[in-house]
Amino acid sequence: MGLSSLVFPGAHHTRFHHALGCLYLMQKAVRLLRFKQVEISKAEEQGLYIAILLHDIGHGPFSHALEASIVQGMHHETLSLQFMETLNADFDGKLAEAILIFKKQHPKKFLCELVSSQLDIDRMDYLKRDSFYTGIAEGNINSERIISMLNVIDNELVIEEKGIYSVEKFLMARRFMYWQAYLHKAGVGAEILLTQILKRAKDLTHLGEVLPGNKALIYFLKSQQDRQRISTADLRHFAALDDIDILAATKEWQNHPDAVLSKLSKALIDRKLFKMKLSDSPFSEAKLLETRNKVAEKWAIDDALTHYFVVTGQLTNLTYDNREAHIRLVDKKGAVRLLTNPFDKLIVNSLTEPVDKYYLCFPKKQP
Amino acid sequence: MGLSSLVFPGAHHTRFHHALGCLYLMQKAVRLLRFKQVEISKAEEQGLYIAILLHDIGHGPFSHALEASIVQGMHHETLSLQFMETLNADFDGKLAEAILIFKKQHPKKFLCELVSSQLDIDRMDYLKRDSFYTGIAEGNINSERIISMLNVIDNELVIEEKGIYSVEKFLMARRFMYWQAYLHKAGVGAEILLTQILKRAKDLTHLGEVLPGNKALIYFLKSQQDRQRISTADLRHFAALDDIDILAATKEWQNHPDAVLSKLSKALIDRKLFKMKLSDSPFSEAKLLETRNKVAEKWAIDDALTHYFVVTGQLTNLTYDNREAHIRLVDKKGAVRLLTNPFDKLIVNSLTEPVDKYYLCFPKKQP
Amino acid sequence: MGLSSLVFPGAHHTRFHHALGCLYLMQKAVRLLRFKQVEISKAEEQGLYIAILLHDIGHGPFSHALEASIVQGMHHETLSLQFMETLNADFDGKLAEAILIFKKQHPKKFLCELVSSQLDIDRMDYLKRDSFYTGIAEGNINSERIISMLNVIDNELVIEEKGIYSVEKFLMARRFMYWQAYLHKAGVGAEILLTQILKRAKDLTHLGEVLPGNKALIYFLKSQQDRQRISTADLRHFAALDDIDILAATKEWQNHPDAVLSKLSKALIDRKLFKMKLSDSPFSEAKLLETRNKVAEKWAIDDALTHYFVVTGQLTNLTYDNREAHIRLVDKKGAVRLLTNPFDKLIVNSLTEPVDKYYLCFPKKQP
Amino acid sequence: MGLSSLVFPGAHHTRFHHALGCLYLMQKAVRLLRFKQVEISKAEEQGLYIAILLHDIGHGPFSHALEASIVQGMHHETLSLQFMETLNADFDGKLAEAILIFKKQHPKKFLCELVSSQLDIDRMDYLKRDSFYTGIAEGNINSERIISMLNVIDNELVIEEKGIYSVEKFLMARRFMYWQAYLHKAGVGAEILLTQILKRAKDLTHLGEVLPGNKALIYFLKSQQDRQRISTADLRHFAALDDIDILAATKEWQNHPDAVLSKLSKALIDRKLFKMKLSDSPFSEAKLLETRNKVAEKWAIDDALTHYFVVTGQLTNLTYDNREAHIRLVDKKGAVRLLTNPFDKLIVNSLTEPVDKYYLCFPKKQP
Repeated sequence: MGLSSLVFPGAHHTRFHHALGCLYLMQKAVRLLRFKQVEISKAEEQGLYIAILLHDIGHGPFSHALEASIVQGMHHETLSLQFMETLNADFDGKLAEAILIFKKQHPKKFLCELVSSQLDIDRMDYLKRDSFYTGIAEGNINSERIISMLNVIDNELVIEEKGIYSVEKFLMARRFMYWQAYLHKAGVGAEILLTQILKRAKDLTHLGEVLPGNKALIYFLKSQQDRQRISTADLRHFAALDDIDILAATKEWQNHPDAVLSKLSKALIDRKLFKMKLSDSPFSEAKLLETRNKVAEKWAIDDALTHYFVVTGQLTNLTYDNREAHIRLVDKKGAVRLLTNPFDKLIVNSLTEPVDKYYLCFPKKQP
Repeated sequence: MGLSSLVFPGAHHTRFHHALGCLYLMQKAVRLLRFKQVEISKAEEQGLYIAILLHDIGHGPFSHALEASIVQGMHHETLSLQFMETLNADFDGKLAEAILIFKKQHPKKFLCELVSSQLDIDRMDYLKRDSFYTGIAEGNINSERIISMLNVIDNELVIEEKGIYSVEKFLMARRFMYWQAYLHKAGVGAEILLTQILKRAKDLTHLGEVLPGNKALIYFLKSQQDRQRISTADLRHFAALDDIDILAATKEWQNHPDAVLSKLSKALIDRKLFKMKLSDSPFSEAKLLETRNKVAEKWAIDDALTHYFVVTGQLTNLTYDNREAHIRLVDKKGAVRLLTNPFDKLIVNSLTEPVDKYYLCFPKKQP
Repeated sequence: MGLSSLVFPGAHHTRFHHALGCLYLMQKAVRLLRFKQVEISKAEEQGLYIAILLHDIGHGPFSHALEASIVQGMHHETLSLQFMETLNADFDGKLAEAILIFKKQHPKKFLCELVSSQLDIDRMDYLKRDSFYTGIAEGNINSERIISMLNVIDNELVIEEKGIYSVEKFLMARRFMYWQAYLHKAGVGAEILLTQILKRAKDLTHLGEVLPGNKALIYFLKSQQDRQRISTADLRHFAALDDIDILAATKEWQNHPDAVLSKLSKALIDRKLFKMKLSDSPFSEAKLLETRNKVAEKWAIDDALTHYFVVTGQLTNLTYDNREAHIRLVDKKGAVRLLTNPFDKLIVNSLTEPVDKYYLCFPKKQP
Repeated sequence: MGLSSLVFPGAHHTRFHHALGCLYLMQKAVRLLRFKQVEISKAEEQGLYIAILLHDIGHGPFSHALEASIVQGMHHETLSLQFMETLNADFDGKLAEAILIFKKQHPKKFLCELVSSQLDIDRMDYLKRDSFYTGIAEGNINSERIISMLNVIDNELVIEEKGIYSVEKFLMARRFMYWQAYLHKAGVGAEILLTQILKRAKDLTHLGEVLPGNKALIYFLKSQQDRQRISTADLRHFAALDDIDILAATKEWQNHPDAVLSKLSKALIDRKLFKMKLSDSPFSEAKLLETRNKVAEKWAIDDALTHYFVVTGQLTNLTYDNREAHIRLVDKKGAVRLLTNPFDKLIVNSLTEPVDKYYLCFPKKQP
């Protein structure tokens, strides 16, 4: 959840917790499916566990902020896969099954769907976990009940008909969590602030400045944006980088002579978060310029540098994606139908339209 | 929840619990609204508490089953009002304010809305309570958060804009609870069974039989269906009747010489609940006859009496009623709009259509 | 919990819930012990489940009140055993293993200990359940954690050393629940009131009165106190008797011409519970007489009948009984020692003394 | 909880959470006491809130490890007070009341007791919070119920008699949490490991090495152990130091040429925690030497440096301190007695003896 703990102080949980939670739920799913006579071999079981434990390993610290700044071009799914392949080499091919599953190439399609689909173990864990730690009751789902409704038909995952309301609740919870937590204005604003800090640090580095920071961080500040592929050195330094390095550097940068870097860093450390204005239509170029001019004046910032302080962009909440593989229901006689079947008169059909909002993000007051 | 504890064993809570829970939530609401500078006088406060404590007092034991059999024509809202008026006389007019609120005639409309509307304290308590005791997680709502979002504008209740997701969750919860608890097949089947027992008992009484049962019960078995008004005697006997009387009589009736009464009573006491078949369209007369014939044969029941054993009817789930007063939202600047405003892209608009199902209810096997 | 719901309105749960909960915990225990390589055969497993499901079947409605009045001399453990034996005959000996376990005669002693000992499944379920429904947080124990610490050495149940604090908490919880729930003054007072009602009903019946009441209840009102053994007729009528019969009769008895029966019955139905005075020493004969005289005067009761209204007795809370088989701990090397081993510096040693309190119970005011 | 999250992964909560939680409980306590007619002025209320919010502000990152190494001689209570006094100067004396309370010099003694005593808001919050995040159910207390039992007599805090079991449970919970969480072997071992890292870093700094680390950390590595008083510079640097600085430095030190510093740092970062052996009596000098020799050999460490790797010490668990001000109970008539009054037959009297354990802490295996 990135910097969300600046907004929801309780949301101090880590990706490590999420990995353990996913493993726990996956064990439940395996036990349940076997109980329903779905065949899962020892090797497939282990593959599932490894795949779900490692599915997020390619996320760096403050994942979105980093991907938008110093590790641009290194997508977290690609990184996860490369880490798995490196581990596979170290462990004499023992991750082969997990990699097949993670790459969605396993012949038993339901194994892949357990790890990644519109109703996967990943989402079940993070929705419930994030709901719990933020205190947003609307996001609380009953993962164990959903799992108990899973089954497999023709090698694909299905939900028993009587679980239909649990699935609806799951989708509603996802929608709620996006608006109330993941797309929370102050949280997104904090993330943008950190992105701008790292962009400025990278730009300064490319201008020849040597910034304080540990080896791994410096490596990425120096690197070129547009890599063709991820090298071994990239991977090694990426693995060495964590939240501590980013935050320790930001603390140091508060005292750096560059006004942009120090002001942005100080704003984050002192929790003077940027303000977010939301709108149903994009902000005009004129509005953007006007805001930048105000900042230039009030903050005594060079016009050419105000783009570090004033940012626009778009937030999208799409609860159920009609273009991806559908959630499928099965009735008592084994007949399968899609969740979006109008016969069921479900509200899912009103959730397949993306809802877009546009933001203008800028400093509230002189930090 | 009538006989639901035969389906959800944990759902063993009582209307007394509900009355106390409503009072508790109402106290929260009063405190909150006063904190927001809404004026509520001492007398109005007491009126609210009395009205919510007594709002269900007109429900008899196994409310729906009784209303459909021995106390037909005595509607629970009318009864509640008559009890309040009787108490008002006993207490020298001290319930006058409560009665105004209950009758929706109080000039401060929001007082009436707290007691009865599409987002009232009554629903907040019973949804959460029934969800808790049945174990249906999908029905769990955050009553206290919803209450904290209430406000009053022009004497009408509104919800602050930021509470919009809590309201959506409330509506979804209501929809879930209808399908999963209140309209649960086995629970509805049990209620129909009890209704048929009481109908038979009444019919036998009118044929001259003297059934075992306590005084209050006998009074209603003897009474005529189509009363013009509720008499003082009606009220006194109604107040004396509780679950114990109905169940004690049903236990006795197991041994009655009348085959219909004894078989039905035995089915309920032995928890041989009737089977419910559901359909999207009404069952045909032919299907009904066919089922009755089967029962006549298997159970050795006279053809003319099979209507006690085989029943059809309709279940309706309407989550949000467009024809009633709307839930209204207020933004930070005080502007009010309806919950169904399409601007919000809420799912409520897919909940305003009633969903109908038809049932055929009959004995599974010889008890 | 008898009439405790008059004091803790939420405590409306039933013995049926307790039986299901015990079964659930027992299933956990079997799974856990087998995982630890303890051998439990299919037949033994089934025996455990039957024994724990039926262990309380000999408790009648309002168990303690009935045992102290109309079913005196029929101890609930004896009754449970006789029901099991009857069922065993009906089911061609399929309860033989369960009966061995229940009678503590099974060669695998730990099977008996799971059903009945100072740390058995029965206590684990009822402490947690009663704590939950009364809202007394002090009684909340972690049954699943305790179960996960169980093991078997030399066919006897032991607790792994690291579970020592969970066991201590379990004992403390038991102690708390006795003082706060099971021995709660108002709850005990209500039970005494019901006992006196039933005693009076029995005495009147023996004087030749024919009281209203269903067949099973009348059977026990008529019966002699000091049965040598429990007959088949006793058993059949006992099985037919439930809470509903007792309460329905008490409702009727409110209108009986006998002043003692009607006043006592009315006091219970109107929730005018008797007052309990507690003391560390027994109440004197003089104090008892004085109280009875007051009651005779205020209530216009014949002196010879005041013993129905004023009662003394003793409450005892013994958390851990040194004279029974001890809870035993096992360390990592398999060495077994008793929980009361002074080496552990546990507080259990301060819980082995019974704490006695004496009560004087009498009507507060004219009902 | 220092490094406990290495043992209980969920225990990732912060001192900031604790401060907010204490404030929340203190607000409840103030509301409750005022409701009971205890006079608390506006200024006293604010003093209470400030005092409880700041009572732990003198705790540095990894408090115990730092106090035992680089900030030796700077006790956290003294630091808290100095921070409050500095803030008091900045805010024109607005913390005067809070300081009086914190220093236990306020004439209304109960204000001081709410902040610090054997049953204070601080303990209520941290027991419940740590129990929740570690998952140790035995530590879960009902803070709100305890608070609801508070009252004031003669300006001193008392507990209403009927709260006696809640207080017992509170003491038991404290005892449990000490053994299971605060004195957990692996957690204490991790803390000792961090202490040794910081000691080595300090010793190297005093030998003239310049270690990587931020300004505040370097300041304390350079400082002398035995300060007479805490200077303004001490305070400023202490305020600038947080977990991030310590962990970022430890990450760097893994690559330092000094074998002791790098091996210890690597052990912590790789979670190769030291092993703890516990005993009821102190470990002999001989045993200590023997262990050090083994380490010297296996780890290729100079004999003179093995003291960084092998450490002995003592753990003490004293649940209730008879030498401090007692918890006091008040009965319905206002009579006050001490919790340890033997009349109550409480188990508290078995909790007043400290339980001591001795440890020997050393590396399990070559990291």
